[in-house]
Amino acid sequence: MTIQSLTEQIRKKSSFLCVGLDSDTSKLPSSVSQHPEAQFTFNKQIIDATHDLAVAYKINTAFYESDGSKGYQALEKTVQYLDENYPNHFTIADAKRGDIGNTSTQYAKAFFEKLPFDSITVAPYMGRDSIEPFLQFEGKYAILLALTSNMGAYDFQTLNTVDRSIYETVIATSRTWKGADRLMYVLGATKTDHLASIRALAPNSFFLIPGVGAQGGDLASVFHAAANEDVGLLVNSSRSIIFASNGDDYTDAARMASMDLQQQMKKLL
Amino acid sequence: MTIQSLTEQIRKKSSFLCVGLDSDTSKLPSSVSQHPEAQFTFNKQIIDATHDLAVAYKINTAFYESDGSKGYQALEKTVQYLDENYPNHFTIADAKRGDIGNTSTQYAKAFFEKLPFDSITVAPYMGRDSIEPFLQFEGKYAILLALTSNMGAYDFQTLNTVDRSIYETVIATSRTWKGADRLMYVLGATKTDHLASIRALAPNSFFLIPGVGAQGGDLASVFHAAANEDVGLLVNSSRSIIFASNGDDYTDAARMASMDLQQQMKKLL
Repeated sequence: MTIQSLTEQIRKKSSFLCVGLDSDTSKLPSSVSQHPEAQFTFNKQIIDATHDLAVAYKINTAFYESDGSKGYQALEKTVQYLDENYPNHFTIADAKRGDIGNTSTQYAKAFFEKLPFDSITVAPYMGRDSIEPFLQFEGKYAILLALTSNMGAYDFQTLNTVDRSIYETVIATSRTWKGADRLMYVLGATKTDHLASIRALAPNSFFLIPGVGAQGGDLASVFHAAANEDVGLLVNSSRSIIFASNGDDYTDAARMASMDLQQQMKKLL
Repeated sequence: MTIQSLTEQIRKKSSFLCVGLDSDTSKLPSSVSQHPEAQFTFNKQIIDATHDLAVAYKINTAFYESDGSKGYQALEKTVQYLDENYPNHFTIADAKRGDIGNTSTQYAKAFFEKLPFDSITVAPYMGRDSIEPFLQFEGKYAILLALTSNMGAYDFQTLNTVDRSIYETVIATSRTWKGADRLMYVLGATKTDHLASIRALAPNSFFLIPGVGAQGGDLASVFHAAANEDVGLLVNSSRSIIFASNGDDYTDAARMASMDLQQQMKKLL
């Protein structure tokens, strides 16, 4: 799926909502947790209940790997379900991968060829040749960690190099990489003070913004600081949607939480 | 497995060799590639042929994920095989993980509890709270990317912050984290000029050093620059061992390539 199609969907649905499927098996509602394919079944129900309100789904690989190869199968089935049933939704493997070129190529194949993800989050520390392998696939995107939503962001990302901070250097440098038109950026919703200057560094790129909801970021502040003419934003919410209720009404609750965000987005758009 | 036991094994075997199981399914010798469990079978054969010469095995997750859940099963079986048959070998999940705390905890569980790995490589970009969750497991270790062996290392790792480069800041800062005695560091064998000053920043830590062999690093230079009193080194070789031959003699060839490195290590020790 191209970013042009993603932008069309954002306009059509008045939503830039990404639902994060951080489907921790230990937190699944009891009515689904005994199902032999509990994780996939839960995801399917959440997707079916929210698809008209969301434009993207983000699958956090950690919550699947923690259940071993069984979890990996649930991940596989979830992205295949999305690909087959909701091809107009943008899918994100939130995997934070990145390694020497040879290995990054294998990760790109894992998520773009073996699995039908549209994009993957990647970590910048190893530099250009660790990211460019992800940028060679038509209609596929890499989403680079820039300024993250957690406290640890202040350990290295905000340190100053000669004339700017590391996260600014990461963004500016990555704009020069081959295939940079297939790069997006992860920016924490808790860092709204920085978003406007970051937008200046990457005026046309999509930003994936986690941290609205459980982590406390504010949607309107994010939008006003970082939206561009094409919107150019995906705001992710995970736990506050998928675990909005742990009772039997969890799909309804997920839908309500999604609709609440989508309605706020509609006003902003 | 503790680092004390690892050091004992290094002394006993006169070897600090780590064999990297980058078992790319497209490169497996034809005599094993048709096997229904080709990747695991190949790994088992390589392990059996090299175990007395190596003290550690590093499993690069990318080469398994690229085969989907089937690949993930091969990864699972390989580390279980090592755990059951060679419990005195140190196992490394070369996974380069790292995410917000909640998610890093899931990755730690995936590799330390669901799978029996002794250690995992982690990326520093997201800072303290993305790494500390890996440091809370008794007898388990996180190996932090510091100065990597690829060209992209010069994009960000070697930039200067106020009084030192980013990779030095990463090492120095990480020494203050909770559980830092369970931290090791990834340092490229191609960066020998920097190894001595890095050793001064982390005098007692183990260094995992990839890049000897296919990437061109020199074993003796690495040893003289970075060994400490307890050796404190694991030198990894992947492709130049496991793909030393693509004929029917691949296990013999892997053994010869391992022995060649082990003999060089024995002289240095």
